[in-house]
Amino acid sequence: MSDKDTICAVATSQGGAIGIVRVSGPSSITITDTLFSGKRPLSAGKSHTLHFGNFLSPEGTIIDEVLVSLFRAPHSYTGEDSVEISCHGSAYILQEVCRQLIAAGCRAARPGEFTQRAFLNGRLDLAQAEAVADVIAANNAATHRIAMAQMRGTYSHALTTIRDRLLQLTALLELELDFSDHEDLEFADRSELSSQAHLLISSIDSLTSSFAVGNAIKNGIAVAIIGAPNVGKSTLLNAIVHDDRAIVSDIQGTTRDTIDATFTIGDHTFRFIDTAGIRQTDDVIEQMGIERSLKAAHHAQIVILLSDGQSPFPQYEGEEHQSLLYVQTKSDLLPPIAALSSNALPASPDAGSILTLSAQTGDGMHLLEQRLKAIADARFSTASSDTIVTNLRHYDALLQAKSALLRVAEGLKAGISGDFIAQDLRECLHHLSEILGGAITSDEVISTIFSRFCVGK
Amino acid sequence: MSDKDTICAVATSQGGAIGIVRVSGPSSITITDTLFSGKRPLSAGKSHTLHFGNFLSPEGTIIDEVLVSLFRAPHSYTGEDSVEISCHGSAYILQEVCRQLIAAGCRAARPGEFTQRAFLNGRLDLAQAEAVADVIAANNAATHRIAMAQMRGTYSHALTTIRDRLLQLTALLELELDFSDHEDLEFADRSELSSQAHLLISSIDSLTSSFAVGNAIKNGIAVAIIGAPNVGKSTLLNAIVHDDRAIVSDIQGTTRDTIDATFTIGDHTFRFIDTAGIRQTDDVIEQMGIERSLKAAHHAQIVILLSDGQSPFPQYEGEEHQSLLYVQTKSDLLPPIAALSSNALPASPDAGSILTLSAQTGDGMHLLEQRLKAIADARFSTASSDTIVTNLRHYDALLQAKSALLRVAEGLKAGISGDFIAQDLRECLHHLSEILGGAITSDEVISTIFSRFCVGK
Repeated sequence: MSDKDTICAVATSQGGAIGIVRVSGPSSITITDTLFSGKRPLSAGKSHTLHFGNFLSPEGTIIDEVLVSLFRAPHSYTGEDSVEISCHGSAYILQEVCRQLIAAGCRAARPGEFTQRAFLNGRLDLAQAEAVADVIAANNAATHRIAMAQMRGTYSHALTTIRDRLLQLTALLELELDFSDHEDLEFADRSELSSQAHLLISSIDSLTSSFAVGNAIKNGIAVAIIGAPNVGKSTLLNAIVHDDRAIVSDIQGTTRDTIDATFTIGDHTFRFIDTAGIRQTDDVIEQMGIERSLKAAHHAQIVILLSDGQSPFPQYEGEEHQSLLYVQTKSDLLPPIAALSSNALPASPDAGSILTLSAQTGDGMHLLEQRLKAIADARFSTASSDTIVTNLRHYDALLQAKSALLRVAEGLKAGISGDFIAQDLRECLHHLSEILGGAITSDEVISTIFSRFCVGK
Repeated sequence: MSDKDTICAVATSQGGAIGIVRVSGPSSITITDTLFSGKRPLSAGKSHTLHFGNFLSPEGTIIDEVLVSLFRAPHSYTGEDSVEISCHGSAYILQEVCRQLIAAGCRAARPGEFTQRAFLNGRLDLAQAEAVADVIAANNAATHRIAMAQMRGTYSHALTTIRDRLLQLTALLELELDFSDHEDLEFADRSELSSQAHLLISSIDSLTSSFAVGNAIKNGIAVAIIGAPNVGKSTLLNAIVHDDRAIVSDIQGTTRDTIDATFTIGDHTFRFIDTAGIRQTDDVIEQMGIERSLKAAHHAQIVILLSDGQSPFPQYEGEEHQSLLYVQTKSDLLPPIAALSSNALPASPDAGSILTLSAQTGDGMHLLEQRLKAIADARFSTASSDTIVTNLRHYDALLQAKSALLRVAEGLKAGISGDFIAQDLRECLHHLSEILGGAITSDEVISTIFSRFCVGK
């Protein structure tokens, strides 16, 4: 499994009009030439040219009429000599083309191996390479914008800036260490170093705090509907999801959970967190189920507290990061105010803040959508200039970098030896470099990252 | 919906690493240029070159980093100026690229419209164009070889040869008509004309008779299993289909029926025709069901007559075009010979020709597969030099051409007036030309053909 192998893979999914087989590596052009018959051999062609001809088996059977794109190192996606074979999008043809390429000396590419080679050849840093998978997975304007910015290096640039300032800090401190015997030399004073460390901490802070937003945008803004059993949670869910603009699908997030119902309002994707009905009960088993529901609801960014005018609103305080929405359904069956007064309970909100609607007739549903959109606009909108962290691996590394920097700041304040402080600075650098994928990034980390890619990318 | 519009469509299916948007028409390069930002404008590029750059919205938002393939008329698939935009295979990006192209002046392509333009611009004849869809749909070596030969013009060439000979015949006859007043001129005698007509009839015959083979290869060789109820038909079906080499899938044939179970042995694809259990019964309703089963079985190329050693073999005579296979299942429960003799019935075959097996244990299943393969090899194999008709439209046209030619032959024999004979010859020519898609092919026929294509081809 050498990186010097020439690799091939189908890069399009089955069933289209056109299918693409990608080949990359030192022998990509010569291997393809043994199976290709055009006006002239590919090896005589310039980079970035297209060649029409037949793709043949060694016995001379025409597998397809193809169009070959020719790329010469380093001017290709991977940085290596590459070809892309565009053929008719038949599963049989794509399979035969790959089979013949492998018989002629190629190896089947591992998932993400083309992008991994682009990374290894310095065409992309690791954060950019990771964003390629996010670009492909992006399913709305917001996720696409964030992934595209990261792939194009905006995020890497922000990290590199932090790293450069950290390197300066380290250099200053190491200067102090190197010349600590020369008492006549003047060094940057420690309060200056300390204020620089605090500036860096706040830079990292603004990145880590963007993760909540980034994660909600990438995986969908989590919405929980809680309420007593049979209060109409599923009807409300269906009424939202089955809307014309709604998309029900499986999306895979950072955490790779499967989500069954997502819907889009404006630029925002929302996803539902399933909760069981909540009510007062002496049944121990049922109480456990209700506790689980409430616990699940705590992960939501938005909690819809639902009443049907018969049962009270659920008692739920909400958390700092949550937006609560009081909704009374079945407005077609009961006048809302009457229902409210008869169900006034500690957790009930002001009458004015309750949305009344009928999921059955659709009455008032647009108000709920407006409210969800307004919350999302206020809390989960990003400008294209924003640097947003969406990747759990990056978030973890940033948290570790921050805690190392906090130790640096403390050490500077406590006046401890420069040796110890330098060690924490190096640790901080290590965690930042790990995101971008320097020499220190372990092979294991890299292969884990690329194994999550699709084959052919 | 002018043919001079510039059209665009996604040409790959969703979910791959790479997605392709295809643009063709007089403004394809200039429209794409308004949304593309590379080293230099596409309009400055030569045909068959590749251009890396950004695909942007008019507001300057980067939709993707793309690779544009540039083709200048007439050196493109459609014969028009064309570009192919290769981007990341995200549904969102592909949709946005198309949306922007349409906003900039393209029109969404209809199914098959790229190939239709190739046909209208004389890049392909109609039979070749139709084969493009078959090439994409081909799912094994045999269907692929036939479709590829047809797309590359082998079949068109055979037809053109017949047509040319027909034109010669017509010319000779019309010469006779034109100079019928000059009694001193000598014409090809009628027996010569007649023998030429018969040669042409046999050429067409060999094409029409290849349709049974072609259709079986394209849609799968039809296999019916008939037998008494509970004799083990489903178990046998499952045992064949669930084999490692088996593929269960929906395939769409010429007739667009949905087929639920197909399997492949060697190079051959087989498909099952469902039949109900057959037994002696006084129940009128059940008799009707059994009649239907027997009728369905008549469409099969291979009929497996099944007994479990308890019930007799079904009484079924078979037809000329059918291969019958006597199979006794449940060999693990009963010794085969004993079972046979106790069930000896008029329709029973010689003991030697009965396959005994157990679908349950798998015992003897390989013998059944060998036998199926042997039948298919003998009856449904083609050499790459063979010209095979697989298209129902072509088959119908050939049958009509043949009956017109039979009238010609009869007319020559009966010595009727050259005027009438010439009319039949022209009708024959018309039907042959219809296959290739000359000026005489109606717009309706053409649009029906291409509406069956996928979008983007």
